[in-house]
Parts: sequence; C-alpha cells; structure tokens
Amino acid sequence: MNQTVTPDSLRPDPSVPSSPDLRRIQAHPDHWYPMAWSRELKPGGTLAVSFAGEPIVLVRPKEGPVFALEDRCAHRQVPLSKGTVDGCAVRCCYHGWAYEASGKCVDVPYLGKDKLPNGVRAYPCREADGLILVFPGDASLADSVAFPGLGSVANPKYKTRRFGKTVGCHYSFMHENLMDMNHQFMHSKQMGQMKPRVLGQARGDDWVEVKYSFKRTGGKQPLGEAVIFGERRSGDQNHAERDIMTIRTEYPYQTLRIQTGDEDPVMDLWIVYVPLDREQKTNRVFGLLSVRKPKIPGILNVAWPLLVLFTERIFREDREIVEMEQAAHDAQGHDWNQEVFPVIRSLRSLLMSCGVDSSVPVS
Amino acid sequence: MNQTVTPDSLRPDPSVPSSPDLRRIQAHPDHWYPMAWSRELKPGGTLAVSFAGEPIVLVRPKEGPVFALEDRCAHRQVPLSKGTVDGCAVRCCYHGWAYEASGKCVDVPYLGKDKLPNGVRAYPCREADGLILVFPGDASLADSVAFPGLGSVANPKYKTRRFGKTVGCHYSFMHENLMDMNHQFMHSKQMGQMKPRVLGQARGDDWVEVKYSFKRTGGKQPLGEAVIFGERRSGDQNHAERDIMTIRTEYPYQTLRIQTGDEDPVMDLWIVYVPLDREQKTNRVFGLLSVRKPKIPGILNVAWPLLVLFTERIFREDREIVEMEQAAHDAQGHDWNQEVFPVIRSLRSLLMSCGVDSSVPVS
Amino acid sequence: MNQTVTPDSLRPDPSVPSSPDLRRIQAHPDHWYPMAWSRELKPGGTLAVSFAGEPIVLVRPKEGPVFALEDRCAHRQVPLSKGTVDGCAVRCCYHGWAYEASGKCVDVPYLGKDKLPNGVRAYPCREADGLILVFPGDASLADSVAFPGLGSVANPKYKTRRFGKTVGCHYSFMHENLMDMNHQFMHSKQMGQMKPRVLGQARGDDWVEVKYSFKRTGGKQPLGEAVIFGERRSGDQNHAERDIMTIRTEYPYQTLRIQTGDEDPVMDLWIVYVPLDREQKTNRVFGLLSVRKPKIPGILNVAWPLLVLFTERIFREDREIVEMEQAAHDAQGHDWNQEVFPVIRSLRSLLMSCGVDSSVPVS
Repeated sequence: MNQTVTPDSLRPDPSVPSSPDLRRIQAHPDHWYPMAWSRELKPGGTLAVSFAGEPIVLVRPKEGPVFALEDRCAHRQVPLSKGTVDGCAVRCCYHGWAYEASGKCVDVPYLGKDKLPNGVRAYPCREADGLILVFPGDASLADSVAFPGLGSVANPKYKTRRFGKTVGCHYSFMHENLMDMNHQFMHSKQMGQMKPRVLGQARGDDWVEVKYSFKRTGGKQPLGEAVIFGERRSGDQNHAERDIMTIRTEYPYQTLRIQTGDEDPVMDLWIVYVPLDREQKTNRVFGLLSVRKPKIPGILNVAWPLLVLFTERIFREDREIVEMEQAAHDAQGHDWNQEVFPVIRSLRSLLMSCGVDSSVPVS
Repeated sequence: MNQTVTPDSLRPDPSVPSSPDLRRIQAHPDHWYPMAWSRELKPGGTLAVSFAGEPIVLVRPKEGPVFALEDRCAHRQVPLSKGTVDGCAVRCCYHGWAYEASGKCVDVPYLGKDKLPNGVRAYPCREADGLILVFPGDASLADSVAFPGLGSVANPKYKTRRFGKTVGCHYSFMHENLMDMNHQFMHSKQMGQMKPRVLGQARGDDWVEVKYSFKRTGGKQPLGEAVIFGERRSGDQNHAERDIMTIRTEYPYQTLRIQTGDEDPVMDLWIVYVPLDREQKTNRVFGLLSVRKPKIPGILNVAWPLLVLFTERIFREDREIVEMEQAAHDAQGHDWNQEVFPVIRSLRSLLMSCGVDSSVPVS
Repeated sequence: MNQTVTPDSLRPDPSVPSSPDLRRIQAHPDHWYPMAWSRELKPGGTLAVSFAGEPIVLVRPKEGPVFALEDRCAHRQVPLSKGTVDGCAVRCCYHGWAYEASGKCVDVPYLGKDKLPNGVRAYPCREADGLILVFPGDASLADSVAFPGLGSVANPKYKTRRFGKTVGCHYSFMHENLMDMNHQFMHSKQMGQMKPRVLGQARGDDWVEVKYSFKRTGGKQPLGEAVIFGERRSGDQNHAERDIMTIRTEYPYQTLRIQTGDEDPVMDLWIVYVPLDREQKTNRVFGLLSVRKPKIPGILNVAWPLLVLFTERIFREDREIVEMEQAAHDAQGHDWNQEVFPVIRSLRSLLMSCGVDSSVPVS
C-alpha cells in the first residue's frame, strides 16, 4: 500500500502568508450596515434579516420609528418575525410573548406582569434615504461611530439607481473585484477593450484609494456608459483619458466616482457588502448608483433602461467570477491568492486590519 | 486586527442548565414503536422503514405474520427491502442471499447449506389495529414491556381518523407543543381565542399529566370542533368550562382526551413521534384521533371532512412552529429554552429521564 | 437517564479486518486515466474535468496537441476552463493571465514580461483512439508507466460502443460488481437465469483474473446478447458452456472477454472507473465495448440498437446497486462487507495493495 502524496504544486505558494486567511476575517460589527430597503417593510409589518448569522427582526409599528431585535423569542427561540406587531411591541406567534423596542419582554399572556422573564437583544437602528441600517456590534459605540454618507442619493442634481443582490462569496472578494480595474478584461464583451492606467494610490488607517484613467484600445463605448457620461465619447484618446475614476474603500463601505476635471462627478457609486451567514460566505449588496442629471433632465429618464441593462450585465459577470473565487477557496481550504498588483495588496492589508480575526479565541 | 466578540445576550441563559441538552436525548428503544400502517405493506411485499437511523425492512409473506429485519444484507449491506419475498424468507436482489424471520441466512445460491454465513438482526414485531409495531431495543425485553393501548381505535363507539406526517424536529418539541395549551394563541385564526386554565397536574415515574378547561374570549367555535363535540357550543362560559381536556405523556406515547363530567370522552387522541434519523431531528407521527359517535351516527360521517380539514390546518401550524424550533436549535447548537410553565418543566424532566443520553459514552 | 447502547449485531463483523477500509483507499494516481472523449473537446476549446478532486482543464489549441493544466489560475484560482484559447496558450477570463502547455505563465497584460509570476501545474496528456488520457500522479513517471491497451477499439474486425456515465460510488464497488458473476441473479429479468461456474482464477502483482462458464437454468437468451454472439443460442447446455468469460482487473483497468474455443473473442470490453471527487465517492466510467463483426457485417449495424438497449439496461441495474452499496457505507462509516467468494477476496486484496491508503499520513 502507498501513502498519500500531495504534489508540491498543489500547495499554497509559501511566499503568501497563509495565516490569517483574509477569507475568514469577519466584517467588523461596530459599523452601521444596511439591512433592508425601506420599501421592504410596511407599517405594522416585520422583516427577517441577518448579519453574519445573527437573525434580526426589523419591526415597523403603525406609528413611530423602525426598531431591530434579535429574531428569536426568549422562550423557544422561534423567529419573532413570524409574529405580529401589537402597538409598539412585537408579539411572538407561538405563545404570545411580547417585546418592545428596547427588547424588554412586556407581556406573557399567562403570567403576571411581575413575573415577566428576560427579554431579547435590541440593536441600534436608523432609517435614512430609503435604507434601514443597524449597528450589529457594541451598542454603546453606535452614537460615536460615523453614520455613512450614502453617496449622492440625497443630492437633487443626481438620479439614483438602488440595486443589490445576494452574492455567494466573502465580502473581501467584492472589494477586490471593484478596486482592481485590470478586470475590465472580463467585461470586454460589454464595454470593449479598455486599458486602465493607475494615476496614484493612497492609504489611511481605515481607507485605501486608487485613481485610474482609461484608454480605449478596441470596441466602441457602450450605450449604457454613454448614458452615465451624458454624451457619446469618440475614440479620441486624450478625451477619454481626461476622465478620472476614483475607487475608495472606506471601511466597510466602498465608493467609485468618475470625474472630469474639477466638475462634480458624472457618476457616484456608494456600495456595501453585508455578510449574511455566520461563515460570511454570502453577502447582500446594497448599492446606490447616482448619475448626474444632464441639462435636459428628461433625456436621462428616457435612457435609464439602457443604464439598468448595462449595469445588470456587468454585475452578473462580476457575481459569477467572485462566486468562482469563493468556490475555489472552499475547495482549497486556504487563500492561495498570488497578488501582483500593489493597490490590491494594500486593500487586502486594510481589510485584514479593520476586520475581526475569527481564528483568534477571546482570551 | 480584532478578536471575536460574542455579545452576552447571544449566549444561552446561564440559568438554564445546558447539559444534557434535551434535544440530543434519544428516544428510548426499549418500547414498542409503530413503523407503518398495515395498509402500506401488501402480502408478498417489503417496506423500508427506520428507527433512529437504523434501517429496518418489514416483510409480509403471502401467508403468516409480518416480520422485521435489519434492512441490510449481511453480504454487501444493500437494502433487503429491494429484494423479493420468497416463501417465508426475503431474498436480497444482488446475489440472492435469503433470510427468514429470525434473521438467519437460509440460502446463498452459490454456497453449500453447511457454509452459510451469519444472518442479520431481527426485531420483535407485532401488528395491531392497523398498525405494524416494532421493538427496536433489547429484544429480550420485548415481551415484558407493555404493548400500547392505542386509545379508542378498537372501541366500536368511536370513529377514528388515522393520520401522520413526517415532521422535521426532535420528538421532544412535539410533546411540549401538545401539552402546552397556551399555544392556543397560535391557532386563534382556526379556533378563535380560547383562554386555557390549568386545573391540575401530576407526575409519575414514566408519565406527566395536566388537565385544562377553556374559556372562549373571542371568535366562534369552529365547525370542525363542533363535529368533535357533537353539538355547537354557544359562547356560554359555564358550559365551555365543563369540558375537561386531559393531556398525558406516558412515555413514549401521548394522549389527549376531552371529557364532560363522567361521560366517555368525546375525543380520545393517541399519538406517538417515532425518530427516523440517527440524530433524531425528524420524526414520523402516528396519530389515532377517535371521536365518539353521536346518537345518530350518520351525522359524524357526513361531517367528517370538516373534522379532517380542521385537524389538518391545526397540524400544519404545529408542524411549522416545531420545525422552526428545531431550526433555531440547529443554528444555536444548544437548547436555549427559557421555560416558565411548570407543566412543561415537568414534562422536560420526564423526557430527559426516560430517554437515552447520547453524549455519555458507554463505559 | 440511560446510556447509549449499540446492539452487537449492528457492529461490523469482527472477523472482517476493518482497517484499512477498502472504500477509503484512493485510486493510485501514477497511471494513465481517461479524462474525456475526444469529441467532447473542440479545437480552440477548453474542458473542465477532474481527478479525485483535482480540477484539470483540457485545452485543445486550433493547432497542435491537447494539453492539460491545473484548472486554477495562479492569481485568484478561478477556473482556467472559463477562459479562452489564445494561440498555444489558455488565458484566464478574469484579469487575462495566460499559460502555455508547460503551465508557465507567459503573459499578464499589466505586468512586464520580466516580472511574470509562477505558473500552474501541467499534467502529462495523450490522446488515443478517441480518448484523452492524463497522468495525474508523479509526472516524471509518466513515460515509464504502461499506456493502456484500450481493448479492441483499434481492431477493424470489431465494432465498438463507447459508453460511460457518472456513478455515485467508490471505484472498488465497480470492480467487484463486474468480477462477481453471481450477481447475474440481479439481471435475471434482462438475461434469464444463468448459473455461473468458476473455471479457475489467478493473481499477479497487479492483476486478478477469473474464468467462468454459464449454464442457462431458466428464461431465453435475450436478443441483445444474441447480437454479441452473432447467433441465437438454444437451451443446449453443452453449447452454452463452451463460451468462456474471462474477467480481469489489471490495475487500474478492467476487461471482460467472451471466447469460444481458440477463436478471437466475440466480445472484448475495456473499462475504467475514474474517481472524480476528493473522497472518491463518485467515478466516471469510460467503457469500450467491442463486438466482433460477423461475416455479413451489415447485420451488426442493424442489430446495434438492440445491443445498446440491452447494455444500457444492464448498466442501469448495476449503477443502482453500487450506489446503494456506497449509501450503506456512508451510513455505516465502515466497510461491513462479509465476502464469501474467493475471487472477490483476491480482488479486494489487489485493490488494497495497488491503491493509496489515505489514512496514513505522510511522514
């Protein structure tokens, strides 16, 4: 009989530090994360969401602000989101235990008010610009942690597309995908061939930023992109290179802006990837894609379906590839990434230092 | 980098003893458990069933009683239930090995009778009132362990509905569900609002019993319930409170009887939850719902579909909620139950002491 | 509370050595294994295949021979099979890294040629008689290890049916199934009742062989079999017993030949079971079923659909049973096989000694 042999070439590259593994670094919970679009939660309704495997119920009473609780009844742990909104409280569907916004248990139909048991965890919760955000970490920090800017969604000069899907990968693959514009190669069917040039990069404690220009080397500008720029660009090289794309990860959010000279950005994307499951192998994307309205604003509305179609196609290609990266990681059990692009090395180091290392036990 | 932080509120309540976990207590095998309805097994046929992950084949020869064997050929462990009934034996479909009711191997087509190999395990097996029951534990105890009474199924004064489904949860959730009548809250759409009152409880070595009366606080008596009582009940409080409901877990069976004064019960339910898989996270329900025939018996037959519909709806709601309890347990890894109802505490303690603790290794 | 009790009869037979477990012995990688049929891979195309969990991409440039690489880009481990063939190289779809047949990285669009990173593993690869074969083990041994004979596929006196399906079991069940002709019992609906007689067996370092004759004891010769023999056989016992069936496992391949006297075989089957997943619980069958052409060769073509139908039915029955064997092994966690047939004991010992014991760690 023979012994197992793993060929050397199948082992991770020893030059890549294998520990800790970026794909096991958890998103830091001490930030404000979108949990749902406002329109998903009607007055008098509940909505089951989750952050990194923690079930959370969003409750919108008929009057008053949305609140967020642990989505488990204290009694038998069935989801409170299956229950009903009763005044300012949510009542479990099984034996009727009721909880108010603070998480306190305020009624058990068959117990005296003096005997009420412990309640459930409550999460800081805010609603802004059509998004419901929750602070899943240490609630005492919620007020001191910056609430995100949400791009140009509130700026009347812009029209915004809200988009998002669930993607089957660790959030870090999403950040890397967007920031590495060399992956334009993958979108050449949609966008033609564009050669990116790095104009510069910078790094702070909780952010990484890179600026690109692009030179079209083949194909024509797609219509969807023309909608964003408000004009058709010819193959004129100097013209195209005037547009500067700035991509920034400001932990845990990401933005992408396209600007010509000192003008306001023609496009301002704000995006975040919220881990859903405990292993953080799936994330829900919340994206706000704001496009500056042209002088004749009706044109943008007419052309909007083109932009939607264009961005959907790009997004689908991105989703397929990052899910393949996750599948490869699952099969290998480690991150074998062999990164050669300094911007991405910098981003990886940022995500590593800002996240939570789940492999280190609490002492 | 940061370390993992589990918020305190996500940890199980330390006041609840976490070990042993009731949801990992195995149903004790030294009892008679239904494995199938008689009508599921034709003469000359086989039927694959299971108890707690043990595959069992039920065999009904063309003549003679049903027998039960381990559903694995001794040779290559393929299911004997895929084979054929050959006289008083079952013959494996692959290489034709044959076994009789005792489990003894009585033929291998290519071996002399003097060289026959070991056979397979046989289980004590009895058929009664349309049920095939097996004793999956220590066969030497089968004769001394009480065979269950099966409610009023054999009583000609009653008409019985046989029902059952596979439910995706540990059997203990089923016992708790039925015995805690505070969960009437969940069925209020089907049954109207009923306030249960505990009249008393009792506990023995292998049983727990509770008696309730009910006061209607909203809604009307559903038609399906009227079928059971043989008459429509008005909102008259004293009248409703004359009906006594007795729920009893007599390990491992459960019964629910509704009685008015000293009369025979108007309803007599006998029910058992047989674990199917090794982890005992699914169970097959065998229920015998016997309703006392009214003086004009034809009425019950006419109204029977109403009763079926009514009980199906109740059962569906119960199934959904207990499967949510199991899903919560799977996600948490422990039982976080915070029980406030003394009857259920008593029941939990009974199920714990009568079952098998799978976490204790055999010394 | 009670302790877990495992009845003795549910434990594996102690007379069978339980360690090492044949069903965990890995197919030895230092052999040539078919990975695909030639027709599955068009010029300019790629094909994702796998050997024992290792993803492999087969690449057929527009000109030149097929080559085989690890199906993971060195950069981000996404499948190269999703990329495009670019001259003599395959280019990853994501950021455009390109690899030639040796596995060397020959282009990264945004890096200088002097900075190119490590490439990926290449596998020895050969194409013969409509099959693409790969040597998944130690590449330095590929030239010295015998390339398989592929039966009579290249012999113009024979017509060959190429067949194969993915089967959900360890390859060892396949070898045992074919070599133990007592399982004719299972095919009696298709083939009538045939009683096999062992004429002799032999064993070498890397092979086991057994010879059978058959006596028809019931039913008639099926038409599909008549196609193979080129004539209808009557019930004449002596006649039937003149046909000798030789089954041979010559590791890792298997052959089955039917011969009458000194004539060329009327049927010559070459078959191999290639493990697909890391646990080797699925295999892809590549079979070459060669039938000697009769004097009037057109007859064989006309009758061919009968042979196809016949062999498909047999194969379906075999697949069902070996998948049940694997399912039983999965449920039991060990091999409980209780083998009474000396030929199969011999085969099991061969497969054990020629394979790789995955439970022994590399020292």
